[in-house]
This record gives sequence, structure tokens and C-alpha cells, in this order.
Amino acid sequence: MATSAADLRDVLRAEVLDPSGGDRLLPDERTLQRVYGASRGAVRGALDLLRAEGLVTRQPGQGTSAVGRGAHHRVDDLRSISTLGGPVRHEVVLRRTVTAQGPVAALLDLPAGAPALRLDRRTVAGGEPVGAWTSYLPLEVAAPLLECPASDLVGDYYEALERVLGVACDHEDLTTEAVAADDVVAGVLGVAVGVPVLRLERVLRLADGRPLEFGVGRFRGDRLRLSVRRRRGGA
Amino acid sequence: MATSAADLRDVLRAEVLDPSGGDRLLPDERTLQRVYGASRGAVRGALDLLRAEGLVTRQPGQGTSAVGRGAHHRVDDLRSISTLGGPVRHEVVLRRTVTAQGPVAALLDLPAGAPALRLDRRTVAGGEPVGAWTSYLPLEVAAPLLECPASDLVGDYYEALERVLGVACDHEDLTTEAVAADDVVAGVLGVAVGVPVLRLERVLRLADGRPLEFGVGRFRGDRLRLSVRRRRGGA
Repeated sequence: MATSAADLRDVLRAEVLDPSGGDRLLPDERTLQRVYGASRGAVRGALDLLRAEGLVTRQPGQGTSAVGRGAHHRVDDLRSISTLGGPVRHEVVLRRTVTAQGPVAALLDLPAGAPALRLDRRTVAGGEPVGAWTSYLPLEVAAPLLECPASDLVGDYYEALERVLGVACDHEDLTTEAVAADDVVAGVLGVAVGVPVLRLERVLRLADGRPLEFGVGRFRGDRLRLSVRRRRGGA
Repeated sequence: MATSAADLRDVLRAEVLDPSGGDRLLPDERTLQRVYGASRGAVRGALDLLRAEGLVTRQPGQGTSAVGRGAHHRVDDLRSISTLGGPVRHEVVLRRTVTAQGPVAALLDLPAGAPALRLDRRTVAGGEPVGAWTSYLPLEVAAPLLECPASDLVGDYYEALERVLGVACDHEDLTTEAVAADDVVAGVLGVAVGVPVLRLERVLRLADGRPLEFGVGRFRGDRLRLSVRRRRGGA
């Protein structure tokens, strides 16, 4: 059975997305045919699929090169994204008090109607928004976030919470899924409606188990990959 | 500032996707307006957004109910998906020897041209394909997988590898991203081209650090959510 374009795409994708990043020229089509034992049609098909994903570009007369955005973030530790093929900036977009209701109240262990802080932030890389978080925190603990300078919140988010609130973050349960950008998300991230978005949802807790934050994040699917190490028998 | 349809959608989504699953009727629109302090337009807009995602359905005269597919899988441990709102079956689609080249050889610590086993499996829930894996393993270790009955491979994948190959799986590095289904993936998963797909990539290792498998998986974005616990300072 010959190597299909889709199979070859899967294999080349691992090379193209090498976390070492940077723009790199791929081997020419003839070399790819020989190395992978693939037909000319399969090689061209694989490169077309990668180009459709925005992972490679073809320069006339030069060949095909990986875009190399290095959009890789390890989530083994509790840290904010600090690099996405270049420096990352976190910006505060909105801070205000709201009333916790329904799931927000339940997830924060608050009675319905209790005051909460809503905090919207966005992540900017290379001058472009690549992700956005909307977070809810119990106002009783989080009130200092309303008043602190926005510059206190531009670095690592967990460190900022610990410094500004005088608490110790312990762990979070992070859920990942693939969704399509609706018009609101598309507007925030500057992408077309319908493109794939990595949707994150989390509950962050303190050492005593109390929830500190319920958050929903959305990142451009073409700009972020999350990696985690799983061990047999659990961590 | 009033609650917008998109904000309310985020909050209701957590309720709709409650892992307890099952079809549940949501509160009526008037109740949602009162509880969340939202306008009638915002409530309708939020329900429209959830319906567009296939997460709720409206029954004329009865109201809106959560579809409740409970598509939640914790990845803290090294286990296959065993339930997705109902029993899950793993099927072997293809087993054959191939030649490891490029990233496949590099990721498996094999010299280019060494023999490898390619194993394609798919995950079926409720009679529908919801995901598919393509895996490459060093033939030297994995040859027994070519001959064993396919029924040996329908349960937990890690247990099957350990039983059939007489090895002990130790850990894997799992990468998650959101991509759009191309025509090949759409065909395998029975979805439309362009819908969001959760793409997984992993390298599975034995206790001595040797790689046992490089795999690429794709799951329907509307059928799988992955959760992991992250701790401050790492695991």
C-alpha cells in the first residue's frame, strides 16, 4: 500500500511543527518522494494539506518552508504562556464586579447572588491577539485585583494572583476542547467565523481546596498547542 | 454593563456540559432572565449560540434541553477513553509494516529505513466513529501486534500493549490542538469538512525511556473534552 497524501502530511507535520521553531526550508519534492517512498502526487497533496493549514508557505523558485511559529506550551506546571514563537504580552481588558449565579456560583462555592470579580484578559503575540480569558473570582478574596495597576497583571498570571492577593495557588483542573469561532470570538481573536479555536475551561484552587477562579479561555487553533506528560498510574 | 449573550453562553455552557450527563431541561427563558439579570435578547442569543454548537435542542412547547453527551475524559492517568456518554469500542482498522523515515524514525529513536508497525484504530461510541488514531511502533518490539487477534486490541490500549508485547508503559507526552477537518479526516469521522477537530499527538515511552509509539489522533470536537490537573511547581 503506497503512502497517501494524508499519511505523509501527518508525518511531515511533526517536522514542520518542531518546537525549535523558525522558518525552515523543507526538502524538495523529489527528495521527499525518495525518502518517504511516496508518489509525486502524494508529496504534492501532503504539501497542499499543510499549506491549507497555514503551516507551510511556497516561495516560487525556492521551495516550501515551514512557517515555524513554535506555538507550543507545556501545561505540566501552573504557568502562563510566556512565549509563542516570540514574546507574549498579557493585557487586562476588563475588571468589574458582577453577581455570581448558576454554575459560576456553584464552581466558586459561593451562594447565588454573591459578589464576584470578573476579569477579562487577552494574550498578544507579535502584535496580534492569539487568546483571551474571561475569569470569575470571589470578590471577598479578589477585591485587590480591582484596584491594582494593570501593569501588575501583564506577566505570569499565577504569580500575579499570589503577589496581589497574598494567596498560594495550588492546582487547577484544565479542560481542553476544539470549537469553531463564533462571531464574538472571531472578533476578539481577529479570525474568520468558523475557524478552529482551542477552548479552555478551568477551576483554580488554593491549597485548602477553596476555588479562587473559574475561567474560560479561547486561543487561535493555529497559534497554540498544549502538551502534558501523562504517567501510568497517574501523577 | 448588562450580561451579553456571549457571556451568558459561557456560563450556561458549564451547566449544559455538566459531566453527570444525560438530557436535562434548562430553566425557561423567563427564569434565566431573572437568575442571570439578563435581557430577553441576551437569553435568546445565548441559547442560539449553544444550539449552533449542538449542545442544546429546543422542543416546541417543552423548552430547551441539554443534549448531555458527557464527552469528558480525564488524562491524568495513562488510560484509553472508556466512556463518552455511553460505552466506547476501539476497533483495529489497519495493521502493516512500513519503513520509518524522517520524524517517525527520529521520534522512535530508529535509524532511517528501519521497519516499523503502523496501527490504525478508531473509537466508536453510540454506533458512530468519534475518533481515530494512527500509530507507529518499532517493529522489533511491536511485531506481536501484527499477529494477535484484533479482539486483543479492543479494550484499554495501554493494557493491550503491555499484555501482547510484555512491556511496561511508563509515560507519554501528549499534545493537543484544535484543527479543521480536511476531507480525509471528515470522511473517517463522518463529519463535514471544516468542523473543529481535537488533534492529539503523542510519544509513548517505556520505563527505560525507549519510545514505544508515535501516534496521531483526531477526535470530533463536539464529542471529546480532555481534562488534566496541573499543580503549582509541576507534578
